[in-house]
Amino acid sequence: MKLATLKNGTRDGRLVVVSRDLTRAIDAAPVAATLQQLIEHWDDLAPGVQSIYELLNAGTALNDFPFDPAQAMSPLPRTHQFVDASAFLNHGNIMEEAYQLSVKKTPGIPVLVQRQSDDFWGPCDDYPLVEADHGDFEGEFAVIVDDTPMASTPEVCASRIRLVMILNDVSMRAHLFRELQMGFGFINAKPATVFGPVAVTPDELGEGWGADGRIHLDMNVSRNGQWFGEPNGREMDWSFGELLARLGLNRNLRAGTILGTGTVSNQAARTVGSACLAEKRALEKISTGDSITPFLQLGDRLRFEVFGADGQSIFGAVDHQFVPFKAEQ
Amino acid sequence: MKLATLKNGTRDGRLVVVSRDLTRAIDAAPVAATLQQLIEHWDDLAPGVQSIYELLNAGTALNDFPFDPAQAMSPLPRTHQFVDASAFLNHGNIMEEAYQLSVKKTPGIPVLVQRQSDDFWGPCDDYPLVEADHGDFEGEFAVIVDDTPMASTPEVCASRIRLVMILNDVSMRAHLFRELQMGFGFINAKPATVFGPVAVTPDELGEGWGADGRIHLDMNVSRNGQWFGEPNGREMDWSFGELLARLGLNRNLRAGTILGTGTVSNQAARTVGSACLAEKRALEKISTGDSITPFLQLGDRLRFEVFGADGQSIFGAVDHQFVPFKAEQ
Repeated sequence: MKLATLKNGTRDGRLVVVSRDLTRAIDAAPVAATLQQLIEHWDDLAPGVQSIYELLNAGTALNDFPFDPAQAMSPLPRTHQFVDASAFLNHGNIMEEAYQLSVKKTPGIPVLVQRQSDDFWGPCDDYPLVEADHGDFEGEFAVIVDDTPMASTPEVCASRIRLVMILNDVSMRAHLFRELQMGFGFINAKPATVFGPVAVTPDELGEGWGADGRIHLDMNVSRNGQWFGEPNGREMDWSFGELLARLGLNRNLRAGTILGTGTVSNQAARTVGSACLAEKRALEKISTGDSITPFLQLGDRLRFEVFGADGQSIFGAVDHQFVPFKAEQ
Repeated sequence: MKLATLKNGTRDGRLVVVSRDLTRAIDAAPVAATLQQLIEHWDDLAPGVQSIYELLNAGTALNDFPFDPAQAMSPLPRTHQFVDASAFLNHGNIMEEAYQLSVKKTPGIPVLVQRQSDDFWGPCDDYPLVEADHGDFEGEFAVIVDDTPMASTPEVCASRIRLVMILNDVSMRAHLFRELQMGFGFINAKPATVFGPVAVTPDELGEGWGADGRIHLDMNVSRNGQWFGEPNGREMDWSFGELLARLGLNRNLRAGTILGTGTVSNQAARTVGSACLAEKRALEKISTGDSITPFLQLGDRLRFEVFGADGQSIFGAVDHQFVPFKAEQ
C-alpha cells in the first residue's frame, strides 16, 4: 500500500492512503490518524489500512479526493530516530580519490550517521538556504522500521522493515569537510531532510525489492529540468538488514526509526550519472583536475523520482526549489 | 516546578508533578498527559501545571502519592532530537594530551554530536551491556527547548529553554575511538542515554542557573558507593544559548529538542575529580604513563546527583547498575 501525510496544521499531519497510480487519496482515519501511530501499532492497524487501499484502487472508495503532493509533508514529518548510512562504497571511493581524503574506515563495518529527525520538510516545499555556498543534494532510498530489539540478526532486522521512501539528503559541503575532519559527525553540514511524498510497503516495488535486501531500481535525478543521473540501488555494499543489525548492535531501535542508504552511486557513474553534485564534481576533478558543475544555486529546482517496471512513479517525486532564507517576522 | 514521567506501559509514559523535596507526586493530567505534550503547548499549559506544583508543595493537593524514582522513565522517554555538546574544552584537552589525539577543531565552534533519541532508559533501570569492554559513563547537564526558528541569536535560543535535567551519557570507548577517527560521529559508541528522574524549570536551580547561561552546580558522581568526582558546571566554554544558536544555524529546532553539555570537567580535575572514567584514566596516564582505574565492570553501580545551595537534591539521582544483556525470549 501507499501512504502520505497531508498538511493540517499539526506537527504530525493527517495520514492518507494514496492510490497505486498516485492520483487519488483518502483519509486513513479512523483506522490510523498519523503514520507514527500506524507504525507503532502495525500488526493491528495495517490490515485495515490495506483494505482502504484496495477499495481506493478499485475505484469503490467513498470520500476519496485528488492527491496533491504539494500538500504533502514528509510521510513522517518528524520521527524519533533517523540514521543515514553511506552504504555505496563507490561514492566514498570517488570522493576520497578526488580530494585525497583519508577516511579511516574499518573493512566490513558500514558508515552510519545519526541525523536530525525533529523537522523534515515537505517534498514540494520551497527550501530556504541560510547560506548558499557549497550546497548539495543526495538522492537516496530509506526504510522505516518497527520496534527491533538490540542485537537482532540481519534477518530479524529485515523482517521489521515496514515502509520504503526516497529522500533528498540536503548537504552543505562547506561545513561537511570541516565536520568530517573533526570526527563528531554532521550538524551544520546536514540541515533538514526532505522525503518523497509517498511511503510504500516493500511489495509495491515488485521485483525492485530484491531478495538480496537491496532496491534494484534507478534513482532518477534532474536539476532545473535537465537529466542529472539515474544510478541504481542494487550496488549497495550492505543489505538493509545488515545495516540495521550494525545500528542495533547494542541498542533497541524503536518504531519509526528511519534508515537511509546514503547517496545512490554506481561503478558506471560516468555513464549513469550521480545522485549528488559532490560526486559529479569529484569525477570531473579526477578527469580534468577541475570541477565544473556548480554547487546548488539559489533558484535551483531539484527532482528525484523512481519508476517501477510498469513505468509508474512509485513514491511520487521530491520536487523542490532552493530559495533565500527569510527570518520569521 | 519539577516534573517526572512514570512507567505506565506506554512509550511516552505518564506525566507527574513532583514536590520540591522529591517526596510526593501527583498526576499532571488533565492539564498535560505527557511531557512532550506539555513542551509543545508550554505557554498554554505550564501555568496550570505550576498551580498543581504549588498545591503539592503546600501539602494541600488531593490524590498525591509518594514519588518513587524506581518507577520513573527518563522525563522524555523518547524525543525527536537529542544533541550532545562537548562544551567543556578541558575534557577534550586532557583526552588529546593523554592519547595524542589530533581532533581538528575550529576555534570558536563548539563540538556538537547528533545522538539517538528514540529509546532513553529510566534512571534506576538495570542497564544491559551487550559487551562490557571499555564501557564508560559521563555525568552531564541538559536542557529541553521549545520551538526555536533557524538562525536565532543566542539570546533568543536561551529564552526557549524550558527545563533542565541531568544524565549519564553511557559510552563504549572501544567503539568511540574507531568512530571518532572515521569522522561520521557516534553509533555503537553511544547506546541508550539515561536521564535523571526529574526535569526542573531553571528557577529551581536558584543561583545555580547562572546569568552567564551556565549551571554553577557540582555534578556529584559515585561508583559503587565511592566518591568519584564533583566537577562544577560553571567552566563550560559556551553558554547554552551559544550552543543552541550554533546547532540551529541553518535549521529549526523543534519542541522537545534536548541539548546536553558533554561530560562536566574542571581545570582542577585532579582535586575535584571527573564525571567519566576516560578522563580519570587519561589523567592517570599523563601522570604515570599508565591508566589504573578500570572501565565499567558488570555489576557496577553508578550514581549522579546535584544538590542546591540548601542541600536539597534538585533532579533526584541517576542510580543504576550495569548488568549482562539477555536477548528477549
